[in-house]
Amino acid sequence: MLPKLQVALDNTSFEDALESVTQYGEFIDVIEVGTILCVAEGMVPVRKLRALYPNKIILADIKGADAGNILAKQCYEAGADWMTVICCADVQTMVGMKKVANTYENHDVQIELYGDWTFDQAKAWRDAGLEQVVYHRSRDAQAAGKGWEQEDLDKIGKLCDLGFKVTITGGLNVEDLAFFKDYPIYCVIAGRGIRDAENPAQAAQDFKAEIARIWG
Amino acid sequence: MLPKLQVALDNTSFEDALESVTQYGEFIDVIEVGTILCVAEGMVPVRKLRALYPNKIILADIKGADAGNILAKQCYEAGADWMTVICCADVQTMVGMKKVANTYENHDVQIELYGDWTFDQAKAWRDAGLEQVVYHRSRDAQAAGKGWEQEDLDKIGKLCDLGFKVTITGGLNVEDLAFFKDYPIYCVIAGRGIRDAENPAQAAQDFKAEIARIWG
Repeated sequence: MLPKLQVALDNTSFEDALESVTQYGEFIDVIEVGTILCVAEGMVPVRKLRALYPNKIILADIKGADAGNILAKQCYEAGADWMTVICCADVQTMVGMKKVANTYENHDVQIELYGDWTFDQAKAWRDAGLEQVVYHRSRDAQAAGKGWEQEDLDKIGKLCDLGFKVTITGGLNVEDLAFFKDYPIYCVIAGRGIRDAENPAQAAQDFKAEIARIWG
Repeated sequence: MLPKLQVALDNTSFEDALESVTQYGEFIDVIEVGTILCVAEGMVPVRKLRALYPNKIILADIKGADAGNILAKQCYEAGADWMTVICCADVQTMVGMKKVANTYENHDVQIELYGDWTFDQAKAWRDAGLEQVVYHRSRDAQAAGKGWEQEDLDKIGKLCDLGFKVTITGGLNVEDLAFFKDYPIYCVIAGRGIRDAENPAQAAQDFKAEIARIWG
């Protein structure tokens, strides 16, 4: 299966997000309501995007840390297919979300890997039934000049070996994708690489073409 | 200075939160727009509560993990005095928020301590200029039966020694407060202990009275 293409709508208003996604929504697989947009308007954009894109995967990137059961109900009832949990949350919080996800078809929870998580924790997440992780360079780490390195690949490989569906993100451009060619990446998240492109529809199709070329 | 009393509005709609806070808002110091309410409606409840309670501290409990600068602008422009960052965020994310906070008077960032944070990290946060931490039992850990223990007090003491203003939270009832009497607690967060009380106004006043009795 080819890696899916996910675009993060990290706009500060739904109007801006809408103006953006209508340009490339048809070409991508996963529409992410980014944390910034969730912080701005909560689940309102999730509901609207669900109505506008009934056949796309909608992700609510809330990075939940607690009260997993309640947050999951909020996200899924609003129409999200996937939601995110922060990796330093208690595993019970993740399990709480996952249990709610499992009451729907094809709903899931992505664990956002920030900071000093360990592979012992990752094993515990897998043992608890979690299936997806998001591996990234943080936006602020990028701004501080941190690039993609062999160390990242090694970690991604270990996560794949544990049986996780691994999504990658963090300022990814089309040219970055080949770096990950030896791994069965589940999802590639692009944000500014598509949203801020001169021609976002073309940029989305370039990502899809490069994904097909590498993993096809 | 007596510990402040903060109540977390973890309602799933602003209407519910409003019905709740109008009963005890005048008796408390910090009105927290809880993560659940932020996930539901974003910054909308922050704006409304700012207008309704011009003299109270309003906290946006978004537990940000990345893009600190942008999230901080969102919270503070909506009228929050304080916001939260998750402890596994990059220190640059925390610094990004704190810098925006410092452009306002009396605005601040609380670091939410979840999972396996370390005192080495805590020192790094202090060195980077962060001043507030929130120490808690997670809601899901509580549900799994975890109580307050001596170990918690030891950690709280070490955080105070590092120079942090330490807030405590996690299913706190009035009877729990005396357990923390030897420490200069900055804020006591109550949620269901006040919101779900038979008489929330009385419960808020009971918390204030007990705080004054212990720390006064």
